[in-house]
Amino acid sequence: MAHLLSTSCNLKIPSGCKPHSRLTQDSVSVASFPASFPFQTSKSPFRNLVLSGERSGGRNCIVQATTISSSREASKNPGTGFDQISSEPSKSQRVMVIGGDGYCGWATALHLSKKGYEVAIVDSLVRRLFDHQLSLDSLTPIASIHNRLRCWKSLTGKTIELYIGDICDFEFLSESFKSFEPDAVVHFGEQRSAPYSMIDRSRAVFTQHNNVIGTLNVLFAIKEFREECHLVKLGTMGEYGTPNIDIEEGYITITHNGRTDTLPYPKQASSFYHLSKVHDSNNIAFTCKAWGIRATDLNQGVVYGVKTEETDIHEELCNRLDYDGVFGTALNRFCVQAAVGHPLTVYGKGGQTRGYLDIRDTVQCVELAIAKPAKPGEFRVFNQFTEQFSVNELAALVTKAGNKLGIEVKTISVPNPRVEAEEHYYNAKRTKLIELGLKPHLLSDSLLDSLLNFAIKYKDRVDTKQIMPSVSWKKIGVKPKTVAA
Amino acid sequence: MAHLLSTSCNLKIPSGCKPHSRLTQDSVSVASFPASFPFQTSKSPFRNLVLSGERSGGRNCIVQATTISSSREASKNPGTGFDQISSEPSKSQRVMVIGGDGYCGWATALHLSKKGYEVAIVDSLVRRLFDHQLSLDSLTPIASIHNRLRCWKSLTGKTIELYIGDICDFEFLSESFKSFEPDAVVHFGEQRSAPYSMIDRSRAVFTQHNNVIGTLNVLFAIKEFREECHLVKLGTMGEYGTPNIDIEEGYITITHNGRTDTLPYPKQASSFYHLSKVHDSNNIAFTCKAWGIRATDLNQGVVYGVKTEETDIHEELCNRLDYDGVFGTALNRFCVQAAVGHPLTVYGKGGQTRGYLDIRDTVQCVELAIAKPAKPGEFRVFNQFTEQFSVNELAALVTKAGNKLGIEVKTISVPNPRVEAEEHYYNAKRTKLIELGLKPHLLSDSLLDSLLNFAIKYKDRVDTKQIMPSVSWKKIGVKPKTVAA
Repeated sequence: MAHLLSTSCNLKIPSGCKPHSRLTQDSVSVASFPASFPFQTSKSPFRNLVLSGERSGGRNCIVQATTISSSREASKNPGTGFDQISSEPSKSQRVMVIGGDGYCGWATALHLSKKGYEVAIVDSLVRRLFDHQLSLDSLTPIASIHNRLRCWKSLTGKTIELYIGDICDFEFLSESFKSFEPDAVVHFGEQRSAPYSMIDRSRAVFTQHNNVIGTLNVLFAIKEFREECHLVKLGTMGEYGTPNIDIEEGYITITHNGRTDTLPYPKQASSFYHLSKVHDSNNIAFTCKAWGIRATDLNQGVVYGVKTEETDIHEELCNRLDYDGVFGTALNRFCVQAAVGHPLTVYGKGGQTRGYLDIRDTVQCVELAIAKPAKPGEFRVFNQFTEQFSVNELAALVTKAGNKLGIEVKTISVPNPRVEAEEHYYNAKRTKLIELGLKPHLLSDSLLDSLLNFAIKYKDRVDTKQIMPSVSWKKIGVKPKTVAA
Repeated sequence: MAHLLSTSCNLKIPSGCKPHSRLTQDSVSVASFPASFPFQTSKSPFRNLVLSGERSGGRNCIVQATTISSSREASKNPGTGFDQISSEPSKSQRVMVIGGDGYCGWATALHLSKKGYEVAIVDSLVRRLFDHQLSLDSLTPIASIHNRLRCWKSLTGKTIELYIGDICDFEFLSESFKSFEPDAVVHFGEQRSAPYSMIDRSRAVFTQHNNVIGTLNVLFAIKEFREECHLVKLGTMGEYGTPNIDIEEGYITITHNGRTDTLPYPKQASSFYHLSKVHDSNNIAFTCKAWGIRATDLNQGVVYGVKTEETDIHEELCNRLDYDGVFGTALNRFCVQAAVGHPLTVYGKGGQTRGYLDIRDTVQCVELAIAKPAKPGEFRVFNQFTEQFSVNELAALVTKAGNKLGIEVKTISVPNPRVEAEEHYYNAKRTKLIELGLKPHLLSDSLLDSLLNFAIKYKDRVDTKQIMPSVSWKKIGVKPKTVAA
């Protein structure tokens, strides 16, 4: 499959290693970026590679093998002449963020680093490849992972280790585990788009293989190398579907023919992507029982927003924002549509109701889960969202916010490319993370204003061809689609 | 992974092409076997290959490419001078049996062929490879699939088409679908042993990849090439685990907080194999809803016995019987243990209760499901077993049957290699197949006598090293086990 990732990499990093002079309002000043930081590549014979300042052909910095040690050594010498951006709790927990170059993963990695955790990012960077292959792009310009980490180090003195490779390659994952020795693994490292999984047979198969086998490998790595390590796994509220009864958090107590048991909540996923998350949940639950793995499954709702406290410090740290028909999610996409004068595209009747949360709550929830881990053998499930909205309600909110900014916002109904109920009961529980201390950022007018203004700022980057849905649940075929989806 | 199947094959067939002169009691006499029958190989450039009578080196018949057509042509010329073994209903339904060289698949393929269906077997033959790799063997000597089919053709005039290849290879599967044009697909083509899936990481990953991707490919092939084709998929009662409430057939109606819905029955699988079946069920249910696939999921209990009406005609048609710690199942293994004077090995306390059925009911159930197919878009789930027993109850029954035959039978408890409840509530529903017309063969003294006598007949073939459990749920590691499990 052409879109599958090679498990080895040969990196060339653009020479834009100089600091941006333009900083965001709250950030500290930057004098220069450090010339090196440690990272690792899949299948590399070297345990650590360092970006040297040497140039090849005038435009590239070359990745070279060195024997420099990992962040534990690097952190002995954090002084780079910059102020630290925040006070740090005295924690030395080591957290591996798989998929740490993605939308939620990047925000989480920075948040945990700021909070004082030792952080390593494990990522194959395949999400960036998907964009190239499908001719898509983030609304926001995003720096390479190498420049992102260099910038973070410059601004905060904090090193985030980087392991570049595919977790489906167990040899690579083993080496990452043995080298970093995580106390917790946050696993975002999956193909995370329902439409992507419904493009063609090859991508359906890729999604299930990639997600299920990657997670199996993580479970085996924990069992073999870090038995006490806490797995924090990103699931999705979409695993539950839209049952006609209240959605509980992972389990439901059923009385049937006079007997009672508490059982896994029935799942009704509605894409090959959502199904892959159900498969993962079942696999993880089994290993908790059979091997004593400690795990937290975060069934996350639809995430909106782009700024977190950490990504907002410098534009080199800016997060991605997807508005396209494949990776974009409802509220983010609506704001971009409003900004460019495109009608908001409601799929079908628009009564589809889901749980939503601000990306600032994503990072908060993950930290809460890590700080208060599951017990050995426990498979803990949290529903990770803060509010419920129907698509029509979101469209109305964006319309109102647009009007306040003087933008006329129209809404159109487009044929629903998915197979889903368009009017249904929906009431999902969300108490466990609140009990752990979550302070939700609720969707407010001011947030919508800020998201809209953000979209307006970058509206020249919008490719309107990306906006409409291009993937049909019913029309998926067996022939690979090689160009834009 | 060394145990993965190559998707192409280069066959050499032993020269034992002559008919066995020794026939079982009820069979007709055989004068000679036909010299050729059609089959296909994965990735082959030729649509049909035929076994010629030519020999290479004196010991092998070589498979050669020809342009001979499929069974529709072959069946025009069924006369081989033999009596037909049964009257045939006037059906022309075309049934593809994936995994038709295996224990349940072989018995089913013959049963359907005898019943008048046009049958094709699709099989990679990887089950035979597992035996070689793990140093295991069937209690009964089994003929090659080529000799099996030639024998069947000789005795009955009926051609069963053969497509040799891996259904994870979609190109191969597509060609099989386009060539055979099935009206129904019976899908036994999965790695079907829980202990096998718990040998090492590589086999856990193989099991989930092989089973989940193979089934995804079958679903895509149906959608693309045979939209009306009915999928009859072998699931397992093990998907449900051992809940403390009655087990329903696939769905349960739940009233919760004053609202009611009928939802998929919660699953609690207890091995990577059982989990793969849960993943399949979820994937299939989704495609029924999204694409209108018609499917029947047969959640089968533990199968015992070896003889069916058709396999009993001639010893070249004899089915496999597994008694080893990896592929053997409780009752079959106990009979073999009793026959060789080995104590019956009860795992743990022996209160583990499961559904069981005679292999003669497996073939009956599959035929019932095919004859009365699911409606388009329907995901139908049947619990396919006839009686419940605890392991201790089975041991007692075998002990009693052994005593009747003058064999002293002992029972020992061995440490349970699995992670499972050893004393639990168990009450599973099984009414839907009865409603369709199933006439169960219940486990009786006479059946046990016959099974025991069968085991005694072949007791010189027993390798006692295979009997004890060798795979531990808790000790599974990441290093491949390359010799005996």
